[in-house]
This record gives sequence, C-alpha cells and structure tokens, in this order.
Amino acid sequence: MIKKRALVLVSGGLDSATVLAIANTQGFECFALSFDYGQRHYSELSAARKLALEMGVVEHKIAVIDLASIGGSALTDQSLAIPEDTSVLSCADDTLDTSIIPVTYVPARNTIFLSYALALAEVHEINDIFIGVNAVDYSGYPDCRPEYIQAFEKMANLATRTAIEGHALKIHTPLIQMSKSQIISLGLELGVNYSQTVSCYQADSDGRACGRCDSCLLRKQGFVAAAIEDPTLYQ
Amino acid sequence: MIKKRALVLVSGGLDSATVLAIANTQGFECFALSFDYGQRHYSELSAARKLALEMGVVEHKIAVIDLASIGGSALTDQSLAIPEDTSVLSCADDTLDTSIIPVTYVPARNTIFLSYALALAEVHEINDIFIGVNAVDYSGYPDCRPEYIQAFEKMANLATRTAIEGHALKIHTPLIQMSKSQIISLGLELGVNYSQTVSCYQADSDGRACGRCDSCLLRKQGFVAAAIEDPTLYQ
Repeated sequence: MIKKRALVLVSGGLDSATVLAIANTQGFECFALSFDYGQRHYSELSAARKLALEMGVVEHKIAVIDLASIGGSALTDQSLAIPEDTSVLSCADDTLDTSIIPVTYVPARNTIFLSYALALAEVHEINDIFIGVNAVDYSGYPDCRPEYIQAFEKMANLATRTAIEGHALKIHTPLIQMSKSQIISLGLELGVNYSQTVSCYQADSDGRACGRCDSCLLRKQGFVAAAIEDPTLYQ
Repeated sequence: MIKKRALVLVSGGLDSATVLAIANTQGFECFALSFDYGQRHYSELSAARKLALEMGVVEHKIAVIDLASIGGSALTDQSLAIPEDTSVLSCADDTLDTSIIPVTYVPARNTIFLSYALALAEVHEINDIFIGVNAVDYSGYPDCRPEYIQAFEKMANLATRTAIEGHALKIHTPLIQMSKSQIISLGLELGVNYSQTVSCYQADSDGRACGRCDSCLLRKQGFVAAAIEDPTLYQ
C-alpha cells in the first residue's frame, strides 16, 4: 500500500518535533521543511536537520527566505533585545490584547511559511501539511489562532492546481489547543528526543539554551508541569 | 495632509507598471516590492528597478525567495522549455479546466508574494496592497481569480498585528477583469512608458523580448487590439 505523504514544518524546536512524531504515527510518509530566514537562533536549523534525519523523513528541505530585511522582530533584528525573565503570558480565549504581542513576533511569518509549504506540497503532490502552532501558550501571536488557520486553509484550497483538481488540502495543527506539558507528555510517548530540540530564541552555536527568554521559560514550565526531567542543554 | 501608503507588487512587466500608475493616481504614497525568485527572465528585475524609480516610489525592495529549488515551473526550471507560438487562451468565466494550466505556472507564487507583501506592509503600517493579477487573459492560473484574492484578503485580516488592531487590510486588483488592450489604453492615459516594461518569459539580459512565448503573444495582441504601436524591444 502506498503511504500518504505529509509535509511537516520543522523548526528544530520542541513543538514541531512533536508534530513530526504525530505525523509519523498517523502513517504519513513525511517531508520536512525548515526555513533559513535570518533568525538569530540559527542553531535551531542544525537541530531541525538532525531531528528530521533521525525521525526518518523522506526529504528535508531548508528554504532560504529573507525575512531579516523586513525587520520588525527581535528574532531577526540584532538591534532589538530578546526579553528575558518576563512573566510568561498564557490565555486560551479568543480575546487578543495587542499590547501583549511580543517583540519576538515575526510579521506574517506563519503565512509566509505556510505559503511556501503550499508550493512545495503542490510539486510533491502532498495534500496534508502539518504545523506546530499553538494557541494556548502563544496567544499573543495572531497567526497561531484556529480562525487564522481555517482562513489559510480555505485560501489554499483556491490557490493551486492541486485544489482545482479536487484534492482538498488540509492544514493539520495537532497541538493548537494543547498546553506545553501536554505536548511534552505526548511527544515522550511517541519517542521524541527533546534533548535534540532547540527552543531558545538566543541559543548559542551549539544549540545550548539561555534559560531566560520567553521560549525557554515556557519550555521549562512545560517540563515542570509534566513532571518530566528537563533534558535541555543550557549555557 | 499625510498621504496614505500603498505597497505595490512590481514585476517589471506591463500589468504591474500599470497598477503602480493607478496607485499613484489614486493618491497613494507607493512602496514597490519585487522578487528575485530564481526566474529565468531576470532582466524583468532591472526593468522593475527603473520603473519604480521613474514612477516616484518611496522605496523599492527586491526580496530574495528561493522558488527555483521547489521546481514545477518552466519559469524557474531551465530544463523545461517555455512554450512558443501556441494559441493564447482567453476565457473570463469561472470554469477552470486544469488541463490548460500552463507550464509557466509557478506553484503558489502569488500566495508567497502576497504573504511577503503582507509582512512588509505590516512593518511599514500599510493597509493597501496592489497586485496586477488578471483573471481574463490568465484564467489558467488558479491564483489570479477573484475568489482566490477574496480568500487571501480574509486570511490576511486574521494574520497580523495590524489586522488585530482593527486596520483592515485591502488587496487591490484593479486589472482583474480587464483585457490586455484595456490595460494598455488605461496605462497610456496614465503616462506609463511601456517600452521600459519586460513581459517576456525569456527576455535576454538587455530585456529584449522573444516575441514568441505566451506572455509576448498576449502582449502583442493587446497592442493590436488597443490600436497602439507596440513599443516592445524585440530580440
């Protein structure tokens, strides 16, 4: 029997590693896609490469897209400081307070990533795209919300030859309503090696985490809440 | 009075030059955006640069996005031939026959371009994006249809901080239902210098057109139908 193909966006972080494991478990033959977009935490790409290979993907593509020159984010602009030791916000409702959109938000990043994934999916005749967005911990990011994903999927189903031919494209977001601890617990069940993932916004070149940025704090709290020993390599 | 800003996608071709003139006429302060995406007709970028400057844009950005490695299109894959001397299809209704989607179709190109424009618009606090898509001559391209543009606009209005703050983003497609001759007639009224535009899919390094590809044929027919002398530089 021919396996169905999936395209999985793999950043090298905890969430997308879990998503790749989920897609594998669901029986998909997985293609991984990462982006070299001028992010300062470049070591996440090395992590993505290792994870993708170890988790048996058919192909791993790193696409170059220049987001740094757009600016507007601490993740791509070295002159903006990454916030450290801040209280981590968490809310699951739909009311977005724009004042809490963090400086680490990269304008339209998920839209650009999903659009590129859409193109690659079309060429490989893939109808299933997986992305590790999460509306619970990252409620400050507009492009992590379910209504955004639904609107993207609707647009995608009008955008391509594949869609016109009647093959509906589905955007899978298995983590969208999960807490970080639930994600970690599920990933461990599925055999994800979290010591290989890099979540830190300012990881060093060996992928060791700062332990103080929002992403590190969320991750740390997740391991505590899941009552799992944190395997993260810290600086 | 502060002028409203617009972001205009400028390819260097006839359509987008006309769109830039339209946005200027509507009183917008224009930012131009072009893409270096591995296209074989690279001289269109030089044309875009010249046009943008002469038409008084505030800024012209050429963004690098690697579409060539995705493949699937004769526009980015040197091993695929550009069709020449074919009959040019033209239909304005909504029934898309996928067998006519040309080999020059680049998978999800407009979605990727518009997504990048969305990011840049957000950083520059721009709520109006102009793109020269056309549903009449290019009915074979799924991402040139009005229903696709509407779906993109809806998605974009959920994707960004700007949208969350209540500034609705609008995708302007002033050419979408116009014929090539109508576009040319309008552009000439607005002072567009079409001799500077490059439409050819395989223009040489000086921007001289082949005169035989679909894009050249459509353009030629447009000048004939508009009863205007064709100012295109041919090889």
